[in-house]
Amino acid sequence: MINEQFIPEAVVLANGEYPTAPLPLKILKEAKFVICCDGAANEYIAQGHIPDIIIGDGDSLSSANKERFFSIIHHISDQETNDQTKAVYFLKEKGFHKIAILGATGKREDHTLGNISLLIDYMRSDLEVRTITDYGVFIPAQHTQTFTSQPGQQVSILNFSAKNLKGEGLVYPLSDFTNWWQGTLNEALTNEFTIHCSGDYLVFLAYQI
Amino acid sequence: MINEQFIPEAVVLANGEYPTAPLPLKILKEAKFVICCDGAANEYIAQGHIPDIIIGDGDSLSSANKERFFSIIHHISDQETNDQTKAVYFLKEKGFHKIAILGATGKREDHTLGNISLLIDYMRSDLEVRTITDYGVFIPAQHTQTFTSQPGQQVSILNFSAKNLKGEGLVYPLSDFTNWWQGTLNEALTNEFTIHCSGDYLVFLAYQI
Repeated sequence: MINEQFIPEAVVLANGEYPTAPLPLKILKEAKFVICCDGAANEYIAQGHIPDIIIGDGDSLSSANKERFFSIIHHISDQETNDQTKAVYFLKEKGFHKIAILGATGKREDHTLGNISLLIDYMRSDLEVRTITDYGVFIPAQHTQTFTSQPGQQVSILNFSAKNLKGEGLVYPLSDFTNWWQGTLNEALTNEFTIHCSGDYLVFLAYQI
Repeated sequence: MINEQFIPEAVVLANGEYPTAPLPLKILKEAKFVICCDGAANEYIAQGHIPDIIIGDGDSLSSANKERFFSIIHHISDQETNDQTKAVYFLKEKGFHKIAILGATGKREDHTLGNISLLIDYMRSDLEVRTITDYGVFIPAQHTQTFTSQPGQQVSILNFSAKNLKGEGLVYPLSDFTNWWQGTLNEALTNEFTIHCSGDYLVFLAYQI
């Protein structure tokens, strides 16, 4: 059973829009270890926090912060990945397994798409990673899984490699979607729903308003 | 040659974040025909404009606007599509072919993903539709195409069904991507680039800052 309760061992604050919704702000506040992508560090610091690590080339950091936080800035050269991924694999190397990503969406849409889809890769690297946005939670999943939900909760399913997709406890039927929109705007009927399939997919659970 | 010049015959203003960047605002200002999804109509009207058509069930319209614009509100019942799609096909039925979609992103990320991916469906319906956001332009394309660009312009390619993907005039090589992020954060070398492939894909051209 996959449920909404998720207490991460570490938090990645990525370069998108700074969180404003109650859930991501609560996670950020209670986080035991926070790694900031450098575009996000200025704002995090301005809000009175101190990151444990800053990842990036430091280009987006103010010169005051660059100087003050010199010792915790890690520059990882890798043209093949983005800062979010560098942060996640940095945490993996340090032994963290359960990770929440905040600030991954908003701003440039291609960054949003990239950041969300990377959850599939993190899952394949045996990490338990979720993206928590101002509107809901993205959870990567594999094969048949049951999720806790609230009756009427909006659910979207994004198919990456899943075959024989079938839903149970959802308003609209699932099939082997070939376009992203086909799995969006579904709805949980009760306190749980099950996705039957073989392969990888993302579930988006929208917050109840 | 596909270029950034795009003068639409009609504009769809969708339910995401109201545009703030110069290009979408210019397109909205110069539009000859504007169809608002109902969540966007209040703001459009508040800014001093009058929509030609409002699509939706009217739930998001203020009661003053519901009364004032009674005659141009079209309620299309179809559980299978969203308001953006209803607006696009309404325009198609009226003979419009070249359509710009604004306000399609921001807010709920699953809506953003759905709205963007629907461009592929509109293209398959023989429409010429683009989504213009605050950060760049999404263009659906099929098979080998050449695009105009600016040297250094950020380009992302999202693969829907394309095979044998190869790039020309881009910094990073293309391949038959299986995850969204793999085609993001590329860059044009000169004033044009070519995507060689067979099948459907989306190109995102970020505005030059």
